[in-house]
Amino acid sequence: MAEFKSELESKIVEVENVIKKFLPEEEGYQKTVLEAMNYSMLAGGKRLRPLMMLESFKMSGGTDTSVVEPFMAAIEMIHNYSLVHDDLPAMDNDDYRRGRKTTHKVYGAGMATLAGDGLLNYAFETAMKSFDVSSVDEHRVIKALRILAQKAGIYGMVGGQCADIVAEGKNSSSEEEIIFIHEHKTAAMIESSLMIGAVLAGADDETVKKLEKTGSNVGIAFQIQDDILDVIGDEEKLGKPVGSDEKNEKTTYVRLHGVDNSSEEVRRLSEEALEIIKSVSSNSGFMCELVESLISRDR
Amino acid sequence: MAEFKSELESKIVEVENVIKKFLPEEEGYQKTVLEAMNYSMLAGGKRLRPLMMLESFKMSGGTDTSVVEPFMAAIEMIHNYSLVHDDLPAMDNDDYRRGRKTTHKVYGAGMATLAGDGLLNYAFETAMKSFDVSSVDEHRVIKALRILAQKAGIYGMVGGQCADIVAEGKNSSSEEEIIFIHEHKTAAMIESSLMIGAVLAGADDETVKKLEKTGSNVGIAFQIQDDILDVIGDEEKLGKPVGSDEKNEKTTYVRLHGVDNSSEEVRRLSEEALEIIKSVSSNSGFMCELVESLISRDR
Repeated sequence: MAEFKSELESKIVEVENVIKKFLPEEEGYQKTVLEAMNYSMLAGGKRLRPLMMLESFKMSGGTDTSVVEPFMAAIEMIHNYSLVHDDLPAMDNDDYRRGRKTTHKVYGAGMATLAGDGLLNYAFETAMKSFDVSSVDEHRVIKALRILAQKAGIYGMVGGQCADIVAEGKNSSSEEEIIFIHEHKTAAMIESSLMIGAVLAGADDETVKKLEKTGSNVGIAFQIQDDILDVIGDEEKLGKPVGSDEKNEKTTYVRLHGVDNSSEEVRRLSEEALEIIKSVSSNSGFMCELVESLISRDR
Repeated sequence: MAEFKSELESKIVEVENVIKKFLPEEEGYQKTVLEAMNYSMLAGGKRLRPLMMLESFKMSGGTDTSVVEPFMAAIEMIHNYSLVHDDLPAMDNDDYRRGRKTTHKVYGAGMATLAGDGLLNYAFETAMKSFDVSSVDEHRVIKALRILAQKAGIYGMVGGQCADIVAEGKNSSSEEEIIFIHEHKTAAMIESSLMIGAVLAGADDETVKKLEKTGSNVGIAFQIQDDILDVIGDEEKLGKPVGSDEKNEKTTYVRLHGVDNSSEEVRRLSEEALEIIKSVSSNSGFMCELVESLISRDR
């Protein structure tokens, strides 16, 4: 476990260095929006999505990482744009994230809106830099681009965000609706990371499909665990108050099925995910540990 | 002139029908964001960018329009997302556009933010549908995608929007800064439309470069003409009050150079643009009339 933690930390440093290579220079008449974008990108975070993408690439036999690096930066840009827009006064109205002022608190809501737009657009520009890598297989890049776009958009993350906003406005949600939100708002970007890594390494369609299922399980399990911790978690460890879902009258998986059944479901989803990962590659030790650490957490 | 107007009208109907084919079905748990996106897309407008793209495609010898159609819808989605976000309370705070309530007045600012994000993301998903056209030259589509992304982003439209916001906050702008704003905020998307049409039709790099220059001239001339009309225009014809730049202490090209010199510059830019168009294709009658109608306008 201590070994995993130090390996994780060194891999995060590696991923951070990749991301930094693709950030825009803060210059020109549009300097302010570039600063706001980089402010959000350099706020830290777990870099989970690019890390999973890189691991999936390696696990699937990829060697020359130069082709996956632009996509690693791109998925982190998309993740960050969604945070910047989510934090806006018109959305969740959050003043702090990761211990720092949110982008709109520093640059104003108008500039933060523009910075989010800039990040989403620049994610696609950045991902397309993979076409410039000399050893590239263009068909793989095209496939990866289509996954990147699809999983981030109205049939992926944006769709989940919309369903979440709509659910907040009413008293009760069905199980199907709750799973839809978790699957789209959270899982889609994990699916995307795992799938793109594999596609760029040349994995076949069946393997990519399996990794999509893995990402779906991981994302949903992560969110149910979140809801469980909101009921039975330790406020000190979590660093945030528990009981917020009950207070907000939010229908969660835990409210529908109770803590025990929910924990059982998290275990089932997680075991299935690990089985698939092992079936896909014999070189999946780190990925399995990463998935376990994400799900079996108490904070 | 009457002939041009009726030709223009029938071409706009044609473009509208193309756009409608690519709009999402309003269904699923994410239905609200899809409705908000379509509300903005179906608000009318001149459809100038997809029209110029289609004309550039035809002018450059393109015949099978199925490859350019996804890009026509995509550029209109990008244009509309920029309007939806521009109108937000945190940006220009406009309640009406094209005689209808703005998206956030109908769906709320949070959902409008999401609808803009959804449109930008879906633009890339939609453009990539060109890869599915059986007769497609994938290299042309890749090139067109990169232009689409670059001209809409921080080195294109978003960059210009940022520079414009920054300029509003200070008393004086240099000529270089004013031209930067026009070139990026307005011209970049016209350049993109002309370039993508030509690229998808198989035009060579030199021709694409020339059309980029054409788009630049047209965009800048259009904006200077806007500033001229704000000084000498007829409020009734324009449908809006004049003198707003002076009231807002906005430094414009006209304020720096006067109306006569500015009109001279509009004429110069416009004549240069027309010359380039004629040099690129012998089949450019409609495009020349379109450019002239955009620039030599009194409303």
